[in-house]
Amino acid sequence: MTQNLAIGFTEGLPITAPNSLQQFKLPMPQPQSGEVIVAVAGVSVNPVDTKRRQVAGKHQTPQIQGYDAVGTITQIGANVTSFKPGDRVIYAGTTLRPGSNQQYQAVDARLLAAAPADAPDADLAALPLVGLTAWELLFEKMGFIPEFNANKGQHLLVINGAGGVGSMLCQLARWSGLTVLATSSPKNHPWLLDHGVATPLDYHQDLIAQVQHAGLQTVDGIALLYQPEPYLAAASQLIRAFGHIGCIVGPQTGLDLAVVKDKAASFDYEYMFAKTDFDYHVASQGAILSRLVSLYQDHQIKASVTKHFDTISVDTLKTATALVEGGHEVGKVVLTGPFA
Amino acid sequence: MTQNLAIGFTEGLPITAPNSLQQFKLPMPQPQSGEVIVAVAGVSVNPVDTKRRQVAGKHQTPQIQGYDAVGTITQIGANVTSFKPGDRVIYAGTTLRPGSNQQYQAVDARLLAAAPADAPDADLAALPLVGLTAWELLFEKMGFIPEFNANKGQHLLVINGAGGVGSMLCQLARWSGLTVLATSSPKNHPWLLDHGVATPLDYHQDLIAQVQHAGLQTVDGIALLYQPEPYLAAASQLIRAFGHIGCIVGPQTGLDLAVVKDKAASFDYEYMFAKTDFDYHVASQGAILSRLVSLYQDHQIKASVTKHFDTISVDTLKTATALVEGGHEVGKVVLTGPFA
Repeated sequence: MTQNLAIGFTEGLPITAPNSLQQFKLPMPQPQSGEVIVAVAGVSVNPVDTKRRQVAGKHQTPQIQGYDAVGTITQIGANVTSFKPGDRVIYAGTTLRPGSNQQYQAVDARLLAAAPADAPDADLAALPLVGLTAWELLFEKMGFIPEFNANKGQHLLVINGAGGVGSMLCQLARWSGLTVLATSSPKNHPWLLDHGVATPLDYHQDLIAQVQHAGLQTVDGIALLYQPEPYLAAASQLIRAFGHIGCIVGPQTGLDLAVVKDKAASFDYEYMFAKTDFDYHVASQGAILSRLVSLYQDHQIKASVTKHFDTISVDTLKTATALVEGGHEVGKVVLTGPFA
Repeated sequence: MTQNLAIGFTEGLPITAPNSLQQFKLPMPQPQSGEVIVAVAGVSVNPVDTKRRQVAGKHQTPQIQGYDAVGTITQIGANVTSFKPGDRVIYAGTTLRPGSNQQYQAVDARLLAAAPADAPDADLAALPLVGLTAWELLFEKMGFIPEFNANKGQHLLVINGAGGVGSMLCQLARWSGLTVLATSSPKNHPWLLDHGVATPLDYHQDLIAQVQHAGLQTVDGIALLYQPEPYLAAASQLIRAFGHIGCIVGPQTGLDLAVVKDKAASFDYEYMFAKTDFDYHVASQGAILSRLVSLYQDHQIKASVTKHFDTISVDTLKTATALVEGGHEVGKVVLTGPFA
């Protein structure tokens, strides 16, 4: 009988606490109808792990996070026809079920995409969560068209372009024809240029002045990949009439949308787990991931891995999580197996 | 030389004040390039007139409002090829130029649609502003598809369904296949049923309970045609994941969008003058009006005139404005000529 090593917690503690993450030996998961079991080969750390851990109280049972994975299917449940044992797959999964920080994970087959045999685990583990978030924000929420060069002539402003979601979103935006302006620290401007950004902006400097210096009074969309409050006034001034301000970070106060109203603009929230949380178009996530895999194979997007640990252990996951919690990470932090 | 009788003000006063509206004899307008001159035959009163008058200070020159008109073109400016003198047209116009409460008005030809010869002035004057607002909100902001029955199977909740915009929006929503639930006072439920609403709701009663009583946990879109603050909590609970909450009234405080975030929903503002204020897709308004005229001729929408004055004078415009300012008006208040 195979053991199932998992890394998780029973209490949400600061990552520096000795028990912030622990190793557990869990029972092997059994697939429910519509599910598969995946032997996890690689995972990635995202800010959502931290946010969820920090609000978690005490639990009787181990809480297993991890919302990015590549692996191989070992078993399929009833009513699974699209995949078979031995298939290599990627997925983000759902927060309603234990995550990918375990050797064997049960996953809803609708959330999976087939992964190419010749791509590294590290790259594949880095794609799902940021890819789904960026795709859904741009193409399902902000109204841009998900086809090559389809949005030619339009300009997108990205706040925080060099982070995990930003690095993916800038690439997808450029692929779809948008001209991208994006903020980061000046030391990361070469990274932005390498990820589809036409005009890097310095996030320390006046945003409106920099956009105007680039020759624009307004932009067609603004992806606000950071706490929205400090940027809302500038975003309201810079968005064109009938434009979309897309955001992925929850507000901490009420948002003043008066200027947004005068321009008939939209404020769009994206949260990729909303689909599984509310059972809405769940299979669309597998379909989006398949398109992301194609774009990756066609060299239209890259996985942007900047930190890679080659063991999945309490130590490496703690170190990776601390890096992400720092909030200044560029690109993606991934861990590939073996589990230890 | 023809005189140009106009009704307007030089100071924004309460409508009950003696000089809240006055008659002026203005010079005949001359068409600029791209403009036509229209002999106005009918106008309508909208809440936007009141809102703009109330914030107006003192002016040296007469301020002429009115953002709905039917009339006949008397003159065309340079570069106007789509219309000729004698054409009957409808339009909402723009707040950047004097409005339709005058005998002769200069209008950007891109904002016009040809009007059928056999339709009453009163009906035609009632269509433009509410039609454009409802169309843009549903089909350009909230993502529904502007084709007959194209949104079949989806549900729309309308807050304030019996007002000017609501009466038009409920009809357009039903034409496009949406099943409409809408609030009003119970005495106006027959009006709602006559305007495409499947399930009238009582705005005095608990909204969530009424929607659930109709067999729904969530709806696919919410058109919030009223001050948003009192409805935001219920709307956040009732909107489905990835749904749209559309609004036409500016916020008076910051809006708490935390729940909207969890559902990856959008908060869409619509303001039909944003297109002319910001020179964005101006010609789209003429195109939308043409489709509205077709739907009107095909009996898919009606003009919903509830009050009709047959003279356009200081007295009738004051009375009509006071009715609209009451805030409980059902349908549309229109005035048709002659000017006096």
